[in-house]
Amino acid sequence: MTSISTVSALLKGEVAVDKTVTVRGWLRSKRDSKAGISFLAVHDGTCFDAIQAVVPNTLDNYESEILKLTTGCAVVVTGQLVESQGKGQNVEIQAATVEVVGWVDDAESYPIAKKRHTFEYLRTQAHLRVRTNTFGAITRVRNTLANAIHNYFHDNQFYWVNTPIITGSDCEGAGELFRVSTLDMTNLPQAPGGGVDYEQDFFGSEAFLTVSGQLEVESHCLAMSKVYTFGPTFRAENSNTSRHLAEFWMVEPEIAFADLNDDAQLAEDLLQHVLQRVLDEREDDMAFFQQRIDKTVIDRLRAVIDNRFERIDYTDAIKILENCGESFEYPVSWGADLQSEHERYLSEKHIGRPVVVMNYPKDIKAFYMRLNDDERTVAAMDVLAPGIGEIIGGSQREERLDVLEARMDEHLKEELWWYRDLRRYGTVPHAGFGLGFERLLNYVTGMENVRDAIPFPRTPGNAHF
Amino acid sequence: MTSISTVSALLKGEVAVDKTVTVRGWLRSKRDSKAGISFLAVHDGTCFDAIQAVVPNTLDNYESEILKLTTGCAVVVTGQLVESQGKGQNVEIQAATVEVVGWVDDAESYPIAKKRHTFEYLRTQAHLRVRTNTFGAITRVRNTLANAIHNYFHDNQFYWVNTPIITGSDCEGAGELFRVSTLDMTNLPQAPGGGVDYEQDFFGSEAFLTVSGQLEVESHCLAMSKVYTFGPTFRAENSNTSRHLAEFWMVEPEIAFADLNDDAQLAEDLLQHVLQRVLDEREDDMAFFQQRIDKTVIDRLRAVIDNRFERIDYTDAIKILENCGESFEYPVSWGADLQSEHERYLSEKHIGRPVVVMNYPKDIKAFYMRLNDDERTVAAMDVLAPGIGEIIGGSQREERLDVLEARMDEHLKEELWWYRDLRRYGTVPHAGFGLGFERLLNYVTGMENVRDAIPFPRTPGNAHF
Repeated sequence: MTSISTVSALLKGEVAVDKTVTVRGWLRSKRDSKAGISFLAVHDGTCFDAIQAVVPNTLDNYESEILKLTTGCAVVVTGQLVESQGKGQNVEIQAATVEVVGWVDDAESYPIAKKRHTFEYLRTQAHLRVRTNTFGAITRVRNTLANAIHNYFHDNQFYWVNTPIITGSDCEGAGELFRVSTLDMTNLPQAPGGGVDYEQDFFGSEAFLTVSGQLEVESHCLAMSKVYTFGPTFRAENSNTSRHLAEFWMVEPEIAFADLNDDAQLAEDLLQHVLQRVLDEREDDMAFFQQRIDKTVIDRLRAVIDNRFERIDYTDAIKILENCGESFEYPVSWGADLQSEHERYLSEKHIGRPVVVMNYPKDIKAFYMRLNDDERTVAAMDVLAPGIGEIIGGSQREERLDVLEARMDEHLKEELWWYRDLRRYGTVPHAGFGLGFERLLNYVTGMENVRDAIPFPRTPGNAHF
Repeated sequence: MTSISTVSALLKGEVAVDKTVTVRGWLRSKRDSKAGISFLAVHDGTCFDAIQAVVPNTLDNYESEILKLTTGCAVVVTGQLVESQGKGQNVEIQAATVEVVGWVDDAESYPIAKKRHTFEYLRTQAHLRVRTNTFGAITRVRNTLANAIHNYFHDNQFYWVNTPIITGSDCEGAGELFRVSTLDMTNLPQAPGGGVDYEQDFFGSEAFLTVSGQLEVESHCLAMSKVYTFGPTFRAENSNTSRHLAEFWMVEPEIAFADLNDDAQLAEDLLQHVLQRVLDEREDDMAFFQQRIDKTVIDRLRAVIDNRFERIDYTDAIKILENCGESFEYPVSWGADLQSEHERYLSEKHIGRPVVVMNYPKDIKAFYMRLNDDERTVAAMDVLAPGIGEIIGGSQREERLDVLEARMDEHLKEELWWYRDLRRYGTVPHAGFGLGFERLLNYVTGMENVRDAIPFPRTPGNAHF
């Protein structure tokens, strides 16, 4: 009776040398020696490395099967765990049996047969790219990052709130909307006054995909004190850039009895905690990203973990940028939003570590952000990190009904009657922020395109798979 | 200098009696004694119970504010933590100051002013209902259940995979689809051959909301060994029942090198683990559900935790039902799906504990389920639990390309080229299941309508908030 082991357990030394073990996985590569021995590299997704299985030609199926194995074949290998002769790994398996579970049909045409592929090509093979070193590592790091986020919040008494994906509201204003409908597009019902009769649509009104769960999660914040969302959000923007997805995951905490400083502190604590978890738990994958994707990635994360975030006022940031002597593509002036080049100058050159820019001009920020006493700025913040720029955007929310309503037009007031209720009944100062999960993952791995940070990216012209 | 405490920490005895403490929260209720003392019940969402603050009329704002406080007002109370004189709780706060942070505008019209409301009415107040005892408890239990699920999987080396919400595929077949589009509905582009020209839509083709992440997550299973989804899924069915939502959250694990028995074992382990976590972590809320919602709820959960799940063949289940002497509304015969009444008879009366019914007739099951050697049945399973019926549905997947393709029509084959690829390259036996999160939450709490198990329910005619 042999027990089944993960590759991870074997390589971590969790199983004693000399034991008979079974591993189940897929061939990353194979080498046949002239001496009649084959070396199989078997991976099972549980860690970055494959384990080597040494297969002697004395096996019954050596000629008939082992010699025909190619990258991607599924195998079950049983044999003795022995100390490795070669370098790189401490242990390998001296195979006693190799069962071939699944063949690769025509190795030549296997879309990810062993050779270098561009990330762009691999996106067309999203169902198979996860079998590569890079995307296996991304999948594990993504998982660890997500688990670290959930547990940071759980351990700090936040509740995960699943805000709605489909919403009847078109007014949050964070971007273009996708319509959700079950109407027959070839026979749309007409409204009596003209236009489409959405009363006949599934929800009895127009419906869209959410751009943010913030407004809804505020309602839960004002009862549960600390809450967060972690779910998909959508932007129907025709942006073909390395930073935009039509569908992406967002993390949005919201805290009651809190101001902008509390919000900045939460952002700092959360980022530091989750980055540390990744470095601790995915040392193997991070070593790969450091070696092959971005030589500075681990240093960058350490700099975030080890340093307090600097906090500066937007107004001071503008002065710094105006007087720094750099020539920027976009002009700097009080009242304009910071561009990526400005953000990176501040965090990378001026401060040299993450910086929280606070209190932006009210005219460039959303209606729900709290008006400061100067009446020119709102309690908004962006967290800028070296190497990426803005990674978090947040604000203290306007909790005063009259001030809030002064910044809403009639349509908004009507649509958000329930949001105004929250200020009418037991309102308290509260704050929160949004963290784009794929951008964070790219920051952590050094990957450059968000399309490589999500299993099946959705972009203009692409909803494949 | 006083420290801020959660109500939970105070009631659990984590802060020493006699210390000066500050709590921040909302009034659940207030009582003014004739002796000039007011008793405030302050909750902050961190546990089921509110803490009592005893407010003497010697406070400066006693007449001007304290006497005017009503349910729902936001307060910050500072005072000495003392042993409670009354029954029910060990400690209370002898208030030295009470700061009123947020008033309730017109207590009479406060939509959830203290009195009994129907769950139906509260759904129209989804932004406020979370402030009630019941929905606060649901929010906490939902969070614990979700965290237990994530951590069960993480601790067992599963990876969370975020499968796409928007999909170009219309063929998974689990239900009616919502269309996702950015086309101008008042000016739809016409295709040359007639009909709508979806090439001009955002994704360059028709796009829909996902009904399941299973097919996509299989691709990750066949590289990472153990994976799961936990995300929103959608059904555009015009079902106004207590068990249907248009938008709900689903958990879908998928395991490689696994058969239907492994799948059943995983379902049993997962359910037992997460139910135990809820009983351990949310004792207060579960006591409430037991007392006010369903007197049998804790016993029911214990029965699931403490007993092995029985496994029976569909064919045997049919024999049992045919010979049991019960009169069912729906006829029982081999080849027909089990109805809710049959499922409940099996788990509640015949077996008396959870039961896994396995190997259903192939004609009533999906194309991707593995054909058994009898060629009449497939390796499908449903987990039936006393008190609810089907709570999990799963199957071993058809890993043999030729057998799979024999059950796919041409449209399906073309659409799912990538799914067939998974059987072409390193295929292995694998299995998985789907668990509806809101139905599980209802099972755990004893609540009857899934609209009360999700913060903002989406149903026919309703995408409010």
